[in-house]
Amino acid sequence: MRRFKIVSPEKQIKIEGEEHNHIAQVLRLKINDRVICFCEDDFDYIYEVVDIQKKYTSLELIEKKQNNCNPKTNIVVFQGLPKGDKLELIIQKLNELGISEIIPFESDFTIAKFNSSKIDRLNKIAYESSKQCGRSKSLIVRDCISFKQMLKEIEKFDTVLFAYENERTIHINNVELYGNIAIIVGSEGGFSLKEVEEILKTKAKVVGLGNRILRCETASIAMSSYISFKLGV
Amino acid sequence: MRRFKIVSPEKQIKIEGEEHNHIAQVLRLKINDRVICFCEDDFDYIYEVVDIQKKYTSLELIEKKQNNCNPKTNIVVFQGLPKGDKLELIIQKLNELGISEIIPFESDFTIAKFNSSKIDRLNKIAYESSKQCGRSKSLIVRDCISFKQMLKEIEKFDTVLFAYENERTIHINNVELYGNIAIIVGSEGGFSLKEVEEILKTKAKVVGLGNRILRCETASIAMSSYISFKLGV
Repeated sequence: MRRFKIVSPEKQIKIEGEEHNHIAQVLRLKINDRVICFCEDDFDYIYEVVDIQKKYTSLELIEKKQNNCNPKTNIVVFQGLPKGDKLELIIQKLNELGISEIIPFESDFTIAKFNSSKIDRLNKIAYESSKQCGRSKSLIVRDCISFKQMLKEIEKFDTVLFAYENERTIHINNVELYGNIAIIVGSEGGFSLKEVEEILKTKAKVVGLGNRILRCETASIAMSSYISFKLGV
Repeated sequence: MRRFKIVSPEKQIKIEGEEHNHIAQVLRLKINDRVICFCEDDFDYIYEVVDIQKKYTSLELIEKKQNNCNPKTNIVVFQGLPKGDKLELIIQKLNELGISEIIPFESDFTIAKFNSSKIDRLNKIAYESSKQCGRSKSLIVRDCISFKQMLKEIEKFDTVLFAYENERTIHINNVELYGNIAIIVGSEGGFSLKEVEEILKTKAKVVGLGNRILRCETASIAMSSYISFKLGV
């Protein structure tokens, strides 16, 4: 069954615009066909098509079901702001992999600038991904924070992993993963030595990702994949 | 030190064209600066810039060193041919993650067509990635094969994992990984029931990747990440 994002699970809802066109023109759904709607809570809402007009489709709520695709562990990725459209790729992949939040941050070597007006569009990438991967609660993209704020935020987590390309001794498969998990990945230029020292003063455990240098987006996606599969997130 | 791809490790080499421009104009290297060259064997070759002309840069071999970024385990991904430029993304990421080969295959539900004349361009994506991630032996992209050929090819491997979205009992973190490893990931449409039955008759172990449905490129990248980190490839 196809999945649609809605604002709230009313008994009757009217779908308009792009989504209505998708239902009526692309999927060519008919009266009595069913769809799954989700609205960022823990449930899937099964609706039945009761009317299709030129400008809207009317749906009626049939059943409310626990969604079983949402993450079972809270994993937050602190992502050094990458250039170009890499953040978009990271959002889509990390939503599929069961990550709860992405918090972009600026550091000494980040070049990209974050435009807070883009947040809605970035969160929409997560919703679109949820339609396909089955989550009813999507990954949340937060506003960009400073390096200093990031150091404060990570203290709230039980496990904090800092991916550092110069780390050669502690490999990610040797660290214990428990509780709420935070991952810190730098932007393309990595971190300044001063920043590395500051991170090492926190509870963060520095981990290496093997001998090869991973691009920043590969590091986030690969760490998220490993932790997601290892913990069955 | 910057990395460059060369054909063979001669005592003296002349770099022309795009790479010469990169050395002379972009990196603005000078005489006595050093670069690392690689040519798809197990070594890194340290060269020194001895001459920079308008049309070429001359390098002289200084030292030959064992490369330590090449994969220590043979992992081959059999990838159902995806649409658009997803194969390009998969090649770049899997090269970084230490995968040895990608073999695209056609199956009942693949829509994309493989153009064998593109193979050089696809392998170039792997070389470009090796410049950045440090491999001296890049991932090899093979020509596209049929589903039947794929079934034969996998018999050469010790561990064969078949990522199947309907598998809910055996999760990837419960399977033993040993020897040469093959991974089978379908294209966007997945496999026909007949194909699934045929795969299940081989030595392939069916594995689930969690409750969420992963896109085909996410499945390849995530499985490769998990296995690469788990085995320290």
